[in-house]
Amino acid sequence: MALSSSAVIHMNMNVKRFDMVRAQQELTLEIPKSKIPKRATHLVESICNAIHHHLQMDPHPPSRSIDLPSYYEEKLSTPTMSPREDISQKWRQIHGCFNWENILDPLHPWLRREIIKYGEFTQATYDAFDYDSFSEYCGSCRYNRNKLFDKLALSKNGYAVTKYLYAMSHIELPRWLERSHVADTWSRDSNWIGYVAVSNDQETRRIGRRDIVVAWRGTVAPFEWYEDFQRKLDPIGKKDAKVEHGFLSIYTSKCEKTRYNKSSASDQVMKEITKLVRLYEEKGEEISVTITGHSLGGALALLNAYEAAYAVPNNVPISVISFGAPRVGNITFKQELEEMGVKTLRVVVKQDWVHRMPGLVFNESFKVFEEIAGLEWVYTHVGSELKLDVGSSPYLKGGGMNLPGFHSLETYLHLVDGYLSSETPFRSEAKRDVALVNKCCDMLVDELRIPQCWYQLANKGLVCNDHGRWVKPKRDPDDIPSHDDDALVPDEMQRYMMNLVSS
Amino acid sequence: MALSSSAVIHMNMNVKRFDMVRAQQELTLEIPKSKIPKRATHLVESICNAIHHHLQMDPHPPSRSIDLPSYYEEKLSTPTMSPREDISQKWRQIHGCFNWENILDPLHPWLRREIIKYGEFTQATYDAFDYDSFSEYCGSCRYNRNKLFDKLALSKNGYAVTKYLYAMSHIELPRWLERSHVADTWSRDSNWIGYVAVSNDQETRRIGRRDIVVAWRGTVAPFEWYEDFQRKLDPIGKKDAKVEHGFLSIYTSKCEKTRYNKSSASDQVMKEITKLVRLYEEKGEEISVTITGHSLGGALALLNAYEAAYAVPNNVPISVISFGAPRVGNITFKQELEEMGVKTLRVVVKQDWVHRMPGLVFNESFKVFEEIAGLEWVYTHVGSELKLDVGSSPYLKGGGMNLPGFHSLETYLHLVDGYLSSETPFRSEAKRDVALVNKCCDMLVDELRIPQCWYQLANKGLVCNDHGRWVKPKRDPDDIPSHDDDALVPDEMQRYMMNLVSS
Repeated sequence: MALSSSAVIHMNMNVKRFDMVRAQQELTLEIPKSKIPKRATHLVESICNAIHHHLQMDPHPPSRSIDLPSYYEEKLSTPTMSPREDISQKWRQIHGCFNWENILDPLHPWLRREIIKYGEFTQATYDAFDYDSFSEYCGSCRYNRNKLFDKLALSKNGYAVTKYLYAMSHIELPRWLERSHVADTWSRDSNWIGYVAVSNDQETRRIGRRDIVVAWRGTVAPFEWYEDFQRKLDPIGKKDAKVEHGFLSIYTSKCEKTRYNKSSASDQVMKEITKLVRLYEEKGEEISVTITGHSLGGALALLNAYEAAYAVPNNVPISVISFGAPRVGNITFKQELEEMGVKTLRVVVKQDWVHRMPGLVFNESFKVFEEIAGLEWVYTHVGSELKLDVGSSPYLKGGGMNLPGFHSLETYLHLVDGYLSSETPFRSEAKRDVALVNKCCDMLVDELRIPQCWYQLANKGLVCNDHGRWVKPKRDPDDIPSHDDDALVPDEMQRYMMNLVSS
Repeated sequence: MALSSSAVIHMNMNVKRFDMVRAQQELTLEIPKSKIPKRATHLVESICNAIHHHLQMDPHPPSRSIDLPSYYEEKLSTPTMSPREDISQKWRQIHGCFNWENILDPLHPWLRREIIKYGEFTQATYDAFDYDSFSEYCGSCRYNRNKLFDKLALSKNGYAVTKYLYAMSHIELPRWLERSHVADTWSRDSNWIGYVAVSNDQETRRIGRRDIVVAWRGTVAPFEWYEDFQRKLDPIGKKDAKVEHGFLSIYTSKCEKTRYNKSSASDQVMKEITKLVRLYEEKGEEISVTITGHSLGGALALLNAYEAAYAVPNNVPISVISFGAPRVGNITFKQELEEMGVKTLRVVVKQDWVHRMPGLVFNESFKVFEEIAGLEWVYTHVGSELKLDVGSSPYLKGGGMNLPGFHSLETYLHLVDGYLSSETPFRSEAKRDVALVNKCCDMLVDELRIPQCWYQLANKGLVCNDHGRWVKPKRDPDDIPSHDDDALVPDEMQRYMMNLVSS
């Protein structure tokens, strides 16, 4: 009998359906009955969980009972700064010694202000970065470390930068390194990746201890990178801890032939932290180490904290405050961090995807893995979470899939500023400048009339010279990066540091 | 017999092929033999011509025997201005009285400088235009007319702006009108479309006559507009002249309800031209009218010249210098312009597409149409052509399909500056600032290290106020557009104009 092709397909489908039913029966027969419901339940739970994440992408914009433009207009003539309370008696709680229990929801105002302070330190690593691929200094900081906070209006925070950090990677990682098109450049292999800063005397009195801050710059690590993550974990430490190999490569790579990474970012930062800790310990001061970063920088912050926990005396508390950071390591990595007392506060935005990476499906909530394959290569988040919601702010466009906007650090800082608790609406007294959100993305509602991605140089840095020609001005000599970092410290900074030491 | 489906298709193809051969035979039999070769030749010629245009899109970059970066570096310390010769004895030739015969190839240096002067007047209409869709003044000029040339460093040319022009369109034209997102705006219907300026006494002496300039702003008219062009010609004048209905709509639309177009652009410009001509005629001066524009602005310039030719006395010569302008009207339009003595110099870049629009196929070279349908709706270019080639400049990226770059007015001005003749390489003494080319496109070779699209405001015009908040500053009151244009003239301008009149 000749069969039409559609009949063949139909028959094949019937065969298949039959096979599936039989296969299911066989499966049922083979597996001991007691185990099925638990596994099935966990599997369904995990997959539902993953799907649920996907469905969270379209929050409803909040209903606006206020006339937003005039409400916003009023804010423009009020200062953005809040009073700076003396938190010296409570600093250990704010620094996370009790894992921020009972002060996250509702969010304690003192903690809110500190989170924003550290977030702004991280934002500085973006704002001062030279992205200009025609600049011979592409990938460096546009200012030397003594100018950085002045240039970015962050001197108000009362910290001084003591060290710039540079990183490279032996592994070819897509789109993380900013590179100049120019042949003769300050560095072909390294990027400015962050800095170490320390609180001055006044701020030290206010916050109750000498605070050593490390801020790590992120890159918006591309999805193709995350796709490549699964199973690419490298061991760290002496136990079974493993971490994602790309993050570890950036943190630890060095090469004698380079100018800025004869030592790795890890070597640079640990040398500076131990030097500063010893300095202030000898003076009998209380000390804290606070490590912060956004996105990839949040991952580097965690690696840094892990290493610092081994190197720094036990009485020096170490905290990580990360923003939109991805998962970094396996469950042993997490356990070791906890055992060593590293406290981690992960600030995440519900609609952002990066903090769900790597391990969108295979993560700590995918419990069935415990039984199937062990947890050696399941990525796990660590610490406490402060979860923000784009939909909570009347200033933000909620809908759509604005991934750069949801992930932007300025969006995070805006949402922290407006966060009271998971149950209450956006804080009406929030004072932080709303316009900052649109610096590098398009998140603000149109009524506010703030252009998108407005953070830009006039004429991309070109200036008209005396002959009427548009030229790129030479960089101020003291802003040219130097691999011999100490040689760059001008007299004022030396004096400033002496003050820090002698006070 | 059962047939496989592929066999059926094969058979169908054979049937079709057979039919086509027969159809061709029938065609051959029906048409009188004498006519075939001519028609066929013309058809083939026209289509080859069109195809040839397509193939011109990929010029080979010139071989570079010079070390471009150091060659360019040297230029940066030389002035961009050339000496300004006294052209008062030759101005009529330079203004085109002999259709620029014998001075285009090779290009006379005096004419080159004049073309660039008028090009810069046109460029001003882009450089000063407010494109910010969050500005309540979107679509206006950012400066009042007395500041315009100072702000754009064009005062060196020795002209003063006497009138701003505004246009609207009753026809819905895609993407030509820049509109504010803001509810309360200076105008919902109109855009600043150009200006009238007049030479001051010093320049008048140098160029031998009082020169009235009209500069028309273009928009990069989108392809969907051109697609719609064919057969949409409206009559103009009293004979059979017809012009593209979109251009004519912008030039002639008015509406009593609007603030800036109670009179049309045509009414505004003609009132100003006739007023100025009368003024200087009464003083016994020699006068010229020079109308310039880029892209759509070049089309408006031609419409303006057509109208002015009827209104202005015969002894006042009228010239159009257009850059990358599309075709505007039919052959009668062209003939009338020629009969009235309007001289047109069309500057075109070989790789640009806009000057081939509308009528990429059906144009003046499509001769077969004469016989088939008459020339009533065939678009025709007018005047003389100065043809530039992107491939001639060692500074420009040649390859690819960089349509915005090929069409950019700054690319045109750069190529005019470097043009000696169609046979010789780029002029090595060309002094115009090369960096200007990349203002709003990406045309310069990477070795020059000029960022693409660099013409931008710092932070898109936001400034940090006293409270540390980023806000859009209020526009300087005397730069706010006014529909009662004369009310805006400050005292200095009044005095300046009086000087012009009394000198």
